Amino acid sequence: MTNLTNIKARKTLDKIQPYTPGKPIWEVQRELGLDRVIKLASNENPLGPSPKAVAAIQNSLTELNRYPDADASALKEAIATKFQVTPKQVITTNGADELITLISEAFLEVGDEVIVPSPSFSEYDFGAHIMGATVVPVAFKEGFEYDVNALISAVTEKTKIIYICTPNNPTGTYMAKADLDKLVEAIGDVLIVIDAAYDHFADAADYTNGVQYIQAGYPVITLETFSKIYGIAGVRVGFGIAPESIIQSILKVKEPFNVNTLAQIAATAAIEDAEHVKTSQQTNKAGRQQLYKAFDELGLTYIQSMANFVLVQIGEDGENLYKQLMAKGVIVRYGKIWGLPEYVRVSVGTEEENQFFINVLTELVIKQA
Amino acid sequence: MTNLTNIKARKTLDKIQPYTPGKPIWEVQRELGLDRVIKLASNENPLGPSPKAVAAIQNSLTELNRYPDADASALKEAIATKFQVTPKQVITTNGADELITLISEAFLEVGDEVIVPSPSFSEYDFGAHIMGATVVPVAFKEGFEYDVNALISAVTEKTKIIYICTPNNPTGTYMAKADLDKLVEAIGDVLIVIDAAYDHFADAADYTNGVQYIQAGYPVITLETFSKIYGIAGVRVGFGIAPESIIQSILKVKEPFNVNTLAQIAATAAIEDAEHVKTSQQTNKAGRQQLYKAFDELGLTYIQSMANFVLVQIGEDGENLYKQLMAKGVIVRYGKIWGLPEYVRVSVGTEEENQFFINVLTELVIKQA
Repeated sequence: MTNLTNIKARKTLDKIQPYTPGKPIWEVQRELGLDRVIKLASNENPLGPSPKAVAAIQNSLTELNRYPDADASALKEAIATKFQVTPKQVITTNGADELITLISEAFLEVGDEVIVPSPSFSEYDFGAHIMGATVVPVAFKEGFEYDVNALISAVTEKTKIIYICTPNNPTGTYMAKADLDKLVEAIGDVLIVIDAAYDHFADAADYTNGVQYIQAGYPVITLETFSKIYGIAGVRVGFGIAPESIIQSILKVKEPFNVNTLAQIAATAAIEDAEHVKTSQQTNKAGRQQLYKAFDELGLTYIQSMANFVLVQIGEDGENLYKQLMAKGVIVRYGKIWGLPEYVRVSVGTEEENQFFINVLTELVIKQA
Repeated sequence: MTNLTNIKARKTLDKIQPYTPGKPIWEVQRELGLDRVIKLASNENPLGPSPKAVAAIQNSLTELNRYPDADASALKEAIATKFQVTPKQVITTNGADELITLISEAFLEVGDEVIVPSPSFSEYDFGAHIMGATVVPVAFKEGFEYDVNALISAVTEKTKIIYICTPNNPTGTYMAKADLDKLVEAIGDVLIVIDAAYDHFADAADYTNGVQYIQAGYPVITLETFSKIYGIAGVRVGFGIAPESIIQSILKVKEPFNVNTLAQIAATAAIEDAEHVKTSQQTNKAGRQQLYKAFDELGLTYIQSMANFVLVQIGEDGENLYKQLMAKGVIVRYGKIWGLPEYVRVSVGTEEENQFFINVLTELVIKQA
């Protein structure tokens, strides 16, 4: 009989930190016996999914015995039209997180370096560690502003990828176009991954999702998702836009049926749902102001956000306050996973959800004081 | 400006052959201007999806703005109950093909060897090549019967994985329990992957999907899918059953939200849909006999199948006949992708679909003669 303990995972995988998802509502309800639980932990759309996406799914259930279109041709066509690129400059994936893994698998060898602003989305590290690459973290400046010079200085001969999450998760800050211009021009043969998952919420005049660099032929890939503004995180669709040669490289490691049929259909409908997008943007903008005002009144420091969440400094006893929020039915994300133990990241909810959170927070902060 | 041509995919990926999916019905209709096209190319369930799965999806569309349960806890519980294992011995994936990639990422280093019966499912090679491992093909005996002694002889110190697809795609043959017993006992520290995607169609008394080896603590992982008998290929769900230590290793490389919400809900319902399973099995068994009878009458050699497809030898001019079938509205899979240019693999359809195929085939074979 073979020896089970001799079947071992690759050594390099020891570096991988398990991902900590936002706790689901049902789990907190069950664990704590609460009637009302609101989840402001995963930057989901509080208004729900695009109604057009839901209707499209409802009309497509009888053919589920068939495999999805491996090429996702209708969806890629819709994306290409929206972003003024060609379908061959588009790749669709099982959420944008799959795309991060595929980019890693396509380009990273053992010993390569990947530059990752810190703190940022943890999946960049995950992809690098799967391939045995080294993560080179680059700190933000004061107020979590991007330090473009530090990023440029971090590039070595081993650098294969630079990630720029803009707006950045979890800080909500972004890289101004002038800085991105500088970065794109300055660095050598390195793929720049612009993760623009939150771009619909960025209303600064000097914000860019980087698609213009791709149109101009730079080695840039812009990542986008249907999990945020479009509100269909549950069906899993992300996509990338890049020069065709880069897309071709990533397609080599893509499984044929990675994007399921309902996801393709829902996303194709959602991208045309201008009304849902507009309402979601307005709700988010008003919600950020609502949160800022409350934080100001409580004397809490927060970071101005271009996204659908706000990073707020809740004090030295952050973990305790995070747990007390949960105990009262508000799930937020605790900052310790990003090395920010005094912070929580709160997703912008509906006006009513935000107020529920503000009331609970106010009560806890006043009690602490 | 950086040089786009210097952004190159890893060299080892050159070995990857692009996957050839079965052509979708709409594509053939559009290309050839046909009214009626039947698809017997992807081993899908001709009766459609489990009605219980469809109903479950219909009741779950309002919460799609939420991320899926990263742990797929309800689905894993249902699978564990069905197979008499624990939920920690189960992993759920975005189709079984994702699981093959994850197994490869968890265990394979550059230069490792993977034993793959030939011809078999192409995704085993794909997973090996992503990781820079070497595929060691082992031929079948006469009539595509498994050669267990040849498989055992092929093991070297570099061997990490042996794939046993049973019933095997594309041959329809299976490995008898006595042979699997011998294999499991004979080999050293090697993970045996039993791909049992087609196990619901295997009615031979000495067939096993291998779960009993897992219950006994052997380093075996059984792969299963919801894409075949359950008829929900479109939503993408596969799963693996293995000793907990093996599952833990594979979980390290799994993305958190790989199985979408609707897939989890649909699969949890489908696994309890005994009626749909039974009807599908009966339809398949009768359909195989219908095809055998027609092939006998046409004097065509075919392989007895334990699956929902039949491999049939259509002669030296196989490619031409395959194309003529397509031109008349019947999509089958041409055997050249498996090095079998005289064969096609035809999925078992409904009685009426099978007859449509038989009529077209008969016409073409008689014309050729």
